[in-house]
Amino acid sequence: MAKELKELTKRSENYSQWYNDLVIKADLAESSAVRGCMVIKPYGYAIWEKMQRQLDDMFKETGHVNAYFPLLIPKSYLSREADHVEGFAKECAVVTHYRLKNAEDGSGVIVDPSAKLEEELIIRPTSETIIWSTYKNWIRSYRDLPILCNQWANVMRWEMRTRLFLRTAEFLWQEGHTAHATREEAESEARTMLDVYSEFAENFMAVPVVKGIKTPNERFAGALETYTIEALMQDGKALQSGTSHFLGQNFAKAFDVQFVNQNNELEYVWATSWGVSTRLMGALIMAHSDDNGLVLPPKLAPYQVVIVPIYKNDEQLNAINEKVADIIKELKALGVSVKYDNADNKRPGFKFAEYELKGVPVRLVMGGRDLENNTVEVMRRDTLQKETKSCDNIAEYVKQLLEDIQANIYQKALNYRSEHTIVVDTYEEFKEKIEEGGFILAHWDGTSETEEKIKEETKATIRCIPLEGDTTPGKCMVTGKPSERRVLFARAY
Amino acid sequence: MAKELKELTKRSENYSQWYNDLVIKADLAESSAVRGCMVIKPYGYAIWEKMQRQLDDMFKETGHVNAYFPLLIPKSYLSREADHVEGFAKECAVVTHYRLKNAEDGSGVIVDPSAKLEEELIIRPTSETIIWSTYKNWIRSYRDLPILCNQWANVMRWEMRTRLFLRTAEFLWQEGHTAHATREEAESEARTMLDVYSEFAENFMAVPVVKGIKTPNERFAGALETYTIEALMQDGKALQSGTSHFLGQNFAKAFDVQFVNQNNELEYVWATSWGVSTRLMGALIMAHSDDNGLVLPPKLAPYQVVIVPIYKNDEQLNAINEKVADIIKELKALGVSVKYDNADNKRPGFKFAEYELKGVPVRLVMGGRDLENNTVEVMRRDTLQKETKSCDNIAEYVKQLLEDIQANIYQKALNYRSEHTIVVDTYEEFKEKIEEGGFILAHWDGTSETEEKIKEETKATIRCIPLEGDTTPGKCMVTGKPSERRVLFARAY
Repeated sequence: MAKELKELTKRSENYSQWYNDLVIKADLAESSAVRGCMVIKPYGYAIWEKMQRQLDDMFKETGHVNAYFPLLIPKSYLSREADHVEGFAKECAVVTHYRLKNAEDGSGVIVDPSAKLEEELIIRPTSETIIWSTYKNWIRSYRDLPILCNQWANVMRWEMRTRLFLRTAEFLWQEGHTAHATREEAESEARTMLDVYSEFAENFMAVPVVKGIKTPNERFAGALETYTIEALMQDGKALQSGTSHFLGQNFAKAFDVQFVNQNNELEYVWATSWGVSTRLMGALIMAHSDDNGLVLPPKLAPYQVVIVPIYKNDEQLNAINEKVADIIKELKALGVSVKYDNADNKRPGFKFAEYELKGVPVRLVMGGRDLENNTVEVMRRDTLQKETKSCDNIAEYVKQLLEDIQANIYQKALNYRSEHTIVVDTYEEFKEKIEEGGFILAHWDGTSETEEKIKEETKATIRCIPLEGDTTPGKCMVTGKPSERRVLFARAY
Repeated sequence: MAKELKELTKRSENYSQWYNDLVIKADLAESSAVRGCMVIKPYGYAIWEKMQRQLDDMFKETGHVNAYFPLLIPKSYLSREADHVEGFAKECAVVTHYRLKNAEDGSGVIVDPSAKLEEELIIRPTSETIIWSTYKNWIRSYRDLPILCNQWANVMRWEMRTRLFLRTAEFLWQEGHTAHATREEAESEARTMLDVYSEFAENFMAVPVVKGIKTPNERFAGALETYTIEALMQDGKALQSGTSHFLGQNFAKAFDVQFVNQNNELEYVWATSWGVSTRLMGALIMAHSDDNGLVLPPKLAPYQVVIVPIYKNDEQLNAINEKVADIIKELKALGVSVKYDNADNKRPGFKFAEYELKGVPVRLVMGGRDLENNTVEVMRRDTLQKETKSCDNIAEYVKQLLEDIQANIYQKALNYRSEHTIVVDTYEEFKEKIEEGGFILAHWDGTSETEEKIKEETKATIRCIPLEGDTTPGKCMVTGKPSERRVLFARAY
């Protein structure tokens, strides 16, 4: 039944195809007519909205406010910070003209050559430069600090190989940009936001993450230090899920942003930036879903419960409708979101497949016999287990079940990660084990040369130098030189 | 005291300058380095967020869902609907290249000529074309309809004369795009959304609006009918505050979007689109504010109450802090948002001026004598009236006061509009009265020629053909030809 709808490629056959199928068939997103840009469909966007709302609350709890800065950045601004422009120049969408006109030969609409901009404008790949050019006017003295702004925005990086959510030319994100009077305060802010991201990933997305520091090679263009959270997907590949940057005084110097400190001296301002994007959707999808479709954590599901009636005739449907109305009322009173699907143009089996595909955490089914017995069939999406429960106190039961599911999928992902995180001491073993996927903790001599050699020979990168865990020194698996501690390797998205 | 902060130009001296001063000094927005693009500052953005949240709730209550479509539109798509491209071609920001590179002469970063796009991309001025090209793949049969999508997005129209919030090259907005099986359903949708906008303007912004239909001259490019809400500002000029368009089958035809209807026949899909933008911020500011600063409706104020202590020493401050903590708790329990400003680096007078400037609806002041008497001074921003109230039940009192303020500023704006809406029968009188500003109801013969003549000679436009009010026929004030009913004229932003 409903075979076509469910026809997902199996993960074991082709993980990459499974992901693409799932994003399309679960109505999350699709490619658009513009190369590399996606359409986020209503069901996908509803999940993103839940993420946004939660993150926004967490940003506000930590003292941040939202603002909005321009989409377009003058080319000369982007060039002010040398590393920054080096990092982004190759993927910039450039606006050169501001008007179209009718072609004189009647062939259609063309770019009006007389409407050429004096200076080209770049669609923001990130907003450090336009924001720091603005902060220059906001900051005079230490009394104006800190500035703790965030913006929710679209950005554009002209990627050559794109994948829905994971890597798209245009994506949605939030970018925090903060300004501080001291180095210590800025460093502390960068770490605080890393903690916010980690808490969000683990407690809301149910995705365990490793917090750590990026090597200089993998740092954000213009940062002194990049903090990251790294998650492990079901195919054994890592996904960088959020980054927080300590920018030092680089952008303050590039845009000449100085302030009078408490000792009445002029000093450059200290900065951070931090962001997560619609890429998190990719992490969410890949961390939990199975061959039947999405598995959504209840805290981020557009609706947590779906109720499907099975009936023989209108009379029976009316009786079920009435019974279900009470259950819906009780669920809503407990803050549980619920959809009742009594549409008559689809068979129950089709609906079951659809809601499994869409990852609705709990499904309730009520049929004629349930009506007689005052029961309802409860299925949990994470394990696909079914049971028949009394309608008495069903709302409390479901609420508790949602909490169990949230905890269970986190634990499942954590178990997967534990089983796929290994310690390796020799480069030979590393090269063998990296083929199996997963995280590898190994010693590294701290040089870019060794890091690049490993990347070239194994396609593995250093995901991060973990902030927690074993800090015993050792010897680099490649060169035998001293290593301060094991670092985290993986192949990555 | 705090003279500099409050130094707003008076409305009576220079209304336009007063507006600009206010937007800047109340920290709502500022111009950016990119011509015509603004930075929305945190306080301004906080108001916009409140608007967004409320509108979004109202859209969802009326069955709409959010989605996201690409920022960039292929030039050929924009050209598909003839009126549409005619309307927007002159203000399009055009992306022609996708990479920068280092200049060979070392002079800096330049556009890489080898990275020229085959087809230029336009930054969306509105999204009908990209969305209808997408809907083509979503719609097969009447069962796929209606589609009721909205998106919150930035758009770009390269305006030559810009003003903060009122007319900027980039602005933020929402755009609803719906697809329907019948003409009737689409027309009804367009009217429903006009009602949503009107309800939002009146009940949340406290701005009375006239609902009406635009003349063909003033229609959205590509629409069969444009509905509008028109508000009157304090300088007697009209501000178009939201529009809802019945698009007929124009975009369905341009993008070949057909569906199989219930009679198993192929038919083009019927469409609407509707939007409000950050321009609403301009309406909100201009409708209520005075020479002391912003006056915000309590329902959209970032915080509704500010509390300022006046104290002689730390001991007294501590006692006030303690007392205020109780009041804050009570206010929050009633859902009232409150800020307590006991910062010691600004004098009370400075704080008073600042919160007046920022339009905080209610100010509470507690000093030493209040402490003794268990009282607090209450000031309402709309009338600047002060009174001393007992701390007992102060939260309930304030909550009621906020409702009174919301109602009062609406009534004030409504009175202003009533006093500045006149009925005129001759063109001579019209030309005289239009100089005084305000709405004028007059007869018009229904032709574009007459409409354009009036516009040229008086700078007044037909704001709308009202949906309500007097429908008595008459004779055109200019040509003497028959007129179906009086229409609404004004000079406009």
